[in-house]
Amino acid sequence: MHEGATGVRFFDLDSAEPLTPVPGIHMRGVFGAGASFSLVSLEPDAELPLHSHPHEQIGIVLEGVEVLVLDGREHHVGPRQAYVIPGGVEHAGRGGPEGCLAIDIFVPTREDYRASAAPELPASSLQRSG
Amino acid sequence: MHEGATGVRFFDLDSAEPLTPVPGIHMRGVFGAGASFSLVSLEPDAELPLHSHPHEQIGIVLEGVEVLVLDGREHHVGPRQAYVIPGGVEHAGRGGPEGCLAIDIFVPTREDYRASAAPELPASSLQRSG
Repeated sequence: MHEGATGVRFFDLDSAEPLTPVPGIHMRGVFGAGASFSLVSLEPDAELPLHSHPHEQIGIVLEGVEVLVLDGREHHVGPRQAYVIPGGVEHAGRGGPEGCLAIDIFVPTREDYRASAAPELPASSLQRSG
Repeated sequence: MHEGATGVRFFDLDSAEPLTPVPGIHMRGVFGAGASFSLVSLEPDAELPLHSHPHEQIGIVLEGVEVLVLDGREHHVGPRQAYVIPGGVEHAGRGGPEGCLAIDIFVPTREDYRASAAPELPASSLQRSG
């Protein structure tokens, strides 16, 4: 079986052109067949205003604090804390005082975020012999 | 609308009882309706041997290097590099010389990993006034 025959693909997030829906928020994405995820950095106090989408959103905060606004209340989500937001539920997200880094997973794939797709890495660039 | 009416749920990964499929590999998960993810730590050289599953797997390495074995070749995936493995494709994963921390997303939800589910946090515990 030759390289790539499995359909496995590799990506480099740091080389992605970010999507910046509002100043201070940068998203870089990887897109599968059934889901996608965005690596999202939010600068302090940068806020993605109230919005909703049909996609289920599953997130985890990696660094800092993300303030999730739901139901008129603010939820301060810290490192290694996670959330599941069903599709259609209105929410906003804001970077805490030190900003934050989070991963947001969308099901199904968030086609409207394709512009933020991380470039594919040739599998050969990741192979090491010995 | 009272608390919880939106169906949003919060979780604490650090409080999860990990699943340890082989010594040195620890998985903690969050389970949505359409997908789940596992926060996976692999100690140096700990390996999940060749296996496959019908779920699509979308992963990102957060720290260290994960060695993905596919098609008889080893791919060294570093921080902020990612991969998409279609369902049914045989693969193995090993921690690099310093181990690694990664997130693996599964579509659909990986029901057989439910034992590693992170405990739910009461939304009220994340709310701050002022």
